[in-house]
Amino acid sequence: MGNRVAIIGVGMSKFGELWEKNLREITLEAGMMAIFDSQISGKDIDAICVGNMSAGRFTGQEHLGALAADVGGLGNLPAYSVEAACASGGAAVRQAYMSIKSGEHDAMLVFGCEKMSDVNQTEAMNTISVASDWEWEGLFGATFPALFGMMARRHMMEYGTTEEQLSLVTVKNHANAAHNPFAQFQRPVPLKVVMGSGLLADPIRILHSSPVTDGAAALVMCNEDVAKKYSDTPIYIDASTQGSDTLALHDRESITEMKAVKISARQALEKAKLSINDIDVFELHDSFTISEIMLTEDVGIVEKGQGGKAVEEGLTELGGKFPVNPSGGLKARGHPVGATGVAQVVEIALQLRGECEKRQVDGAEKGMAVNTGGTGATSIVHILGRD
Amino acid sequence: MGNRVAIIGVGMSKFGELWEKNLREITLEAGMMAIFDSQISGKDIDAICVGNMSAGRFTGQEHLGALAADVGGLGNLPAYSVEAACASGGAAVRQAYMSIKSGEHDAMLVFGCEKMSDVNQTEAMNTISVASDWEWEGLFGATFPALFGMMARRHMMEYGTTEEQLSLVTVKNHANAAHNPFAQFQRPVPLKVVMGSGLLADPIRILHSSPVTDGAAALVMCNEDVAKKYSDTPIYIDASTQGSDTLALHDRESITEMKAVKISARQALEKAKLSINDIDVFELHDSFTISEIMLTEDVGIVEKGQGGKAVEEGLTELGGKFPVNPSGGLKARGHPVGATGVAQVVEIALQLRGECEKRQVDGAEKGMAVNTGGTGATSIVHILGRD
Repeated sequence: MGNRVAIIGVGMSKFGELWEKNLREITLEAGMMAIFDSQISGKDIDAICVGNMSAGRFTGQEHLGALAADVGGLGNLPAYSVEAACASGGAAVRQAYMSIKSGEHDAMLVFGCEKMSDVNQTEAMNTISVASDWEWEGLFGATFPALFGMMARRHMMEYGTTEEQLSLVTVKNHANAAHNPFAQFQRPVPLKVVMGSGLLADPIRILHSSPVTDGAAALVMCNEDVAKKYSDTPIYIDASTQGSDTLALHDRESITEMKAVKISARQALEKAKLSINDIDVFELHDSFTISEIMLTEDVGIVEKGQGGKAVEEGLTELGGKFPVNPSGGLKARGHPVGATGVAQVVEIALQLRGECEKRQVDGAEKGMAVNTGGTGATSIVHILGRD
Repeated sequence: MGNRVAIIGVGMSKFGELWEKNLREITLEAGMMAIFDSQISGKDIDAICVGNMSAGRFTGQEHLGALAADVGGLGNLPAYSVEAACASGGAAVRQAYMSIKSGEHDAMLVFGCEKMSDVNQTEAMNTISVASDWEWEGLFGATFPALFGMMARRHMMEYGTTEEQLSLVTVKNHANAAHNPFAQFQRPVPLKVVMGSGLLADPIRILHSSPVTDGAAALVMCNEDVAKKYSDTPIYIDASTQGSDTLALHDRESITEMKAVKISARQALEKAKLSINDIDVFELHDSFTISEIMLTEDVGIVEKGQGGKAVEEGLTELGGKFPVNPSGGLKARGHPVGATGVAQVVEIALQLRGECEKRQVDGAEKGMAVNTGGTGATSIVHILGRD
């Protein structure tokens, strides 16, 4: 048996405010699509892993592993749920990767899902705060816009990053999402509108922030033998790494970098024996546009402090040297927190298969997905490649 | 490198209503004890896995992987949380097992934790219901006592199981817990008191039910090379298996058995190349005493329907042929939901190391821990052995 882990099927529900569907319906929808895409027989799937952040608070339902096995009609499979805040989806991919690599499982169905719109906005905001340090941040009113506001302000002070640069990330990601039929916001947005949108936490405006979203994404992951049996276009996981940092912002040496991302991205490149210049396409966690700017630096696309300029100069746009978030990213594809990490991997896989039509990065052979949790207390990096 | 996975350190907080401590304090306490017990250097630990069911609702805090890495001062390690309802602890052990077997990690700190007493009883009950099928059970008032009440009533009808037998499980487990310094209830309870305690959901009485508990348990798990470096008494995981079943009780063919347990226990014995008679000591998930009776049957200690008689005849008591829950079980050690699966493995490891003093099963060489979620929608089985 080859010891590489492959992705042979991908699926997604539409991302958005899905009032007419519940968590199990969107999860089933994504899973069925991934199974259909892979052409695998349901009988060959021997475990399920679900990435989810807080369905217990958003919907009153946890135990999502068993739920997924149940609604999928896949029988009495091992099934469990993984949580790492907004990096829960990436954590599910990484857990499945290790489970398959261990030989315990041959082929797995991997989900990311979140149904956020069933609670009111205040409860949604409080629920998201479970990812911060509740006792030292959330409890005192330091919401995520507030925390990222401080990071952004400091980045502007230290490196001269501008409000226009923060806004250009939005313009770029909306332009990309216009070509993504699964995105929440499939329309461009002019710079003027972004810069004139309401302030959430100075300097962060509403159009610098990812939205509240319902959605699910799914993968069929398997070992090399199963991949060869079912797929002509398997995408392989060249590296899977993870790092963490202090939960609270005030405990860090610097709030203008995400140390966990720096470490895990460097480790991933080492494991895959690649340099950053070998990566053709990126999905970087842009929960706020300042995050994308920081991650552009922390993964090594540009030097620290140059992330704002990178977007201004078009380096990270479709057609640029380092295209970031061709899917529209969290900002415009939407950010159902537990689903995002899986959706990032779905996008990279589709890019490497050359199936992204108008948002396709030509000839992409290697891609990187970076999924973070909280203000960067968790970072999960996957490098994918095709043969 | 040997490819077995070992447990070289165990730790626990006291289980109980720990008003004076928060989630991070009890987690740290258990982790420090496990590290000290193993004598491992913190630098040799390269990942963290946390089993937790619903800290987001119980305490407002999720992202417990990063939290554990943070409070433990262990640096920027990969760290994540696993959820499978009341089987979350077992799921964490199983995830760590696969992570180490995959070669991605060499030595891991594994936690189970839950702080349940910070919310009121109604909210605690609602939170536990996230493990049932919320839309078809919990929402309509079918709490866990109600669901297990139906299972118990049916078991009594089909097999003649008696209220006295349901109560004798409590008597046995309290007698065992009297010798466990970490147990919530370290005192025997007379049969008369159990049978006279208040009805929760006929035939289930309050003393047939596990309590609301705060607590944490921890393990240091590693590959064989690390184990040999640090430990003279490594305990090995001979098998780790998992199964699932429909989330809702009404979807099952039978409500007097837990199919997921039957499947995963049989698979575990096959993997470990053992028969049930080779197992010297058991920790079986007794969230309600009827669960222990059903599990005694479903793992194969006795035939279906004979679980009540087994406890009546002393088969499962300390000194019996198949001692079940020498720790006191969920009933008397306490049931901090996410911690329980890890605490079961802690007990089995201590039993195999011969360190259980008055509750020691003499000469125990093989032990089995069965951790279930919901009404049996998840089952996770570990068989442990010493060389």
